[in-house]
Amino acid sequence: MPSTNHTFPSRTEHRAWLASQAALPAGFRVGTARFEFTPFEVPKPAKMTITLIVLDQPTPDFAAMFTKNAFPGAPVIVGRKRLEEPKLGAILVNNKISNVCAPGGVETSERLCAAAAKTLGLNASEILPSSTGVIGWRLPADAIAAALPQAISSLAAGSILPAAEGIVTTDLYPKIRRADLLGGSIVGIAKGAGMIEPNMATMLVYILTDLAVPRADLRKILARSVDRSFNCMSIDSDTSTSDTVAILSSGKVPCSDLAAFEAALNIVCADLAEDVARNGEGVRHVMRVKVSGAPTEQTARAIAKTIVNAPLFKCAVAGNDANVGRLVQAVGKYVGANEPTIALGRTQMKFGGIPIVKDGIFALDPTKEKALVAHLKSAELYESAPPKDGVFAPPIDFPPHERCVEIEVDLGVGSASATVIGADLTHEYVSENADYRS
Amino acid sequence: MPSTNHTFPSRTEHRAWLASQAALPAGFRVGTARFEFTPFEVPKPAKMTITLIVLDQPTPDFAAMFTKNAFPGAPVIVGRKRLEEPKLGAILVNNKISNVCAPGGVETSERLCAAAAKTLGLNASEILPSSTGVIGWRLPADAIAAALPQAISSLAAGSILPAAEGIVTTDLYPKIRRADLLGGSIVGIAKGAGMIEPNMATMLVYILTDLAVPRADLRKILARSVDRSFNCMSIDSDTSTSDTVAILSSGKVPCSDLAAFEAALNIVCADLAEDVARNGEGVRHVMRVKVSGAPTEQTARAIAKTIVNAPLFKCAVAGNDANVGRLVQAVGKYVGANEPTIALGRTQMKFGGIPIVKDGIFALDPTKEKALVAHLKSAELYESAPPKDGVFAPPIDFPPHERCVEIEVDLGVGSASATVIGADLTHEYVSENADYRS
Repeated sequence: MPSTNHTFPSRTEHRAWLASQAALPAGFRVGTARFEFTPFEVPKPAKMTITLIVLDQPTPDFAAMFTKNAFPGAPVIVGRKRLEEPKLGAILVNNKISNVCAPGGVETSERLCAAAAKTLGLNASEILPSSTGVIGWRLPADAIAAALPQAISSLAAGSILPAAEGIVTTDLYPKIRRADLLGGSIVGIAKGAGMIEPNMATMLVYILTDLAVPRADLRKILARSVDRSFNCMSIDSDTSTSDTVAILSSGKVPCSDLAAFEAALNIVCADLAEDVARNGEGVRHVMRVKVSGAPTEQTARAIAKTIVNAPLFKCAVAGNDANVGRLVQAVGKYVGANEPTIALGRTQMKFGGIPIVKDGIFALDPTKEKALVAHLKSAELYESAPPKDGVFAPPIDFPPHERCVEIEVDLGVGSASATVIGADLTHEYVSENADYRS
Repeated sequence: MPSTNHTFPSRTEHRAWLASQAALPAGFRVGTARFEFTPFEVPKPAKMTITLIVLDQPTPDFAAMFTKNAFPGAPVIVGRKRLEEPKLGAILVNNKISNVCAPGGVETSERLCAAAAKTLGLNASEILPSSTGVIGWRLPADAIAAALPQAISSLAAGSILPAAEGIVTTDLYPKIRRADLLGGSIVGIAKGAGMIEPNMATMLVYILTDLAVPRADLRKILARSVDRSFNCMSIDSDTSTSDTVAILSSGKVPCSDLAAFEAALNIVCADLAEDVARNGEGVRHVMRVKVSGAPTEQTARAIAKTIVNAPLFKCAVAGNDANVGRLVQAVGKYVGANEPTIALGRTQMKFGGIPIVKDGIFALDPTKEKALVAHLKSAELYESAPPKDGVFAPPIDFPPHERCVEIEVDLGVGSASATVIGADLTHEYVSENADYRS
């Protein structure tokens, strides 16, 4: 089930592995600039990084998907318009402020695209903007415009790592995944589900390829890949106002096999989604929940999401507590509220491969209980320690392994299945989201 | 909006107030017994209380509503059958173990009803069973049967307080609400949303009245009251497998005004629901969210529930952080995912009475920010302090006040509204649900 199973004994080894993944596909350059500014709403110094991803030649072959939140950020509103444009030449990203429901937000976003376009020799409509960070604040447009020349002068074709680092907020580490195939490559970076003090999570994903996949195919393929990866992940059930996944093809390498391209993109997207979960706020355990035997894939996915989002079960996993009662509760909660006609009398459940429910009835004993706890401990990313100041923070800034808490639920009523990635609910999550303000 | 606004400077004053609410309606007695036993699954000593609520004469006038969880507890399965019986004479409640998906659970529940019925001179079918506590464990049927005579010998007509105390698990304090009207009374008790180590929340509510309301009316009225109170509350979005709300009328006092009865029952249920939220696991702030201007009441309620269940917003409230971006996120999340045709451009939002969103755009400034924080602090039940052992626990076992964080969202697109009670997400919640096990 997992496409990778690395272990990283130290940050150094994780960084070396990231570097090994970071070569840019042909036809792209990335550059960044970091600067200090003073937000209008909270007049204290803050720092922002702008990241540019630039194509050597504008391309018609691009695709993007955006948040379904009904209060979308201004860059999402602009980005949806860009989908109708004939070509895209660059992506301009800022962190720290997400430009959501802010007065004049769309105008500011367009103004910054125009400023970047002028120096890059593009049209403003050929630039896709993205912003992530505090919701409610206004973008410091003048400060961003002033920093653009530095970002442009730093554009380089070697590595995507500067962009992977430039787009993060409180992520613990950058995230890069790649696939090499058919003489070209697919390279993706992701940001999230980090928090920026004091505001909400945003996921940004940019995928670059030199394989020539026409726009119409690229859009269909991206939609399917996203549906099976990022749409099958939940850290805390909250939907960002800025979520964006974009893919750009430079077309430098002919693509002889669209099916192979799609399969490789699926893996890149699924691995990035798991990276995002593993680096989620305060995450100590990643959960992988497979629901099978369902009447439809939609039902299977909804039940799996209910499990990974059930606060009581998430807390139990955080505590290495094999609280199977809370797992059963979550399944029953979804079915009872949404599809009460599904009979659960043939439900089987496994936890770390160990059968715990047989035909809807618990099959537990003290020996199994110990094995369940051992499985939970093996998937723990770090041990939580109470800090002196009361603010919990993860003691690592790299992922020590890629193991998950593995949960299987077979409803026994159909043949559809789905797998969802999630995470536990920890003191580190609460500290990150409650403890840094008055 | 709040029906009560007490403050309790100390536990003593809270207890005195509870005592003032506790007089039983005519025609009822309550009794309890507490004993030690050894669970089959985790062979360590544990304690259980059984609680009996007994009518002087079995009554045809009773109503009950149960969890919609599709893995209902055995007592819920039995309770649904009881609704068809001509009369009910008693309720038998145990805490500590919830008897859910346990081998032979229904048979055990019926066996205990039969044992109680024999001593009380009733039929087994005239007893409504309830169990709350650990999911997955089996009831200690022999130990419960052995304790029944003690509970029966303690039956007394004076106060409902022993029952309010007998049904709790990890609740910090018992919950009683009453209404006196038309020469009779309605008295309700509630358990939840406490946790029993190491398992999941259950809400149990029993309401007794001496007012003679015929069964058919009682059932319709209870359904409406529950829909506006307990169904408008969420501590953590997890639905217990054992939730039960039951009302019994002894019929001792003629009821001349059904509308007055329903109005009084509405208040008793709404106040108990708020009590349950205020005593929710680790709760430091109760939130009251009113959504108005909605196309339907269902939409208004769903948006309000999305707000009180949004983990990031709950964490912000816990930290006295007026993070209005997360509030906007929650509204947009629901609308985008479920009713994307609703336009949010006329949305107004208030926080503690202070306007923060006007026509879908933030209206914020540093002065308002201070006022929002002051509102949050005024609604805080206690200050969180990092404990030496890393396990957070509320420092109080009574509710110091009945204030809420008040949030109003006016969608401006219709005339329907709903109000939902919820709570924040704290270190105390995580500690209660993660920190007590290996």
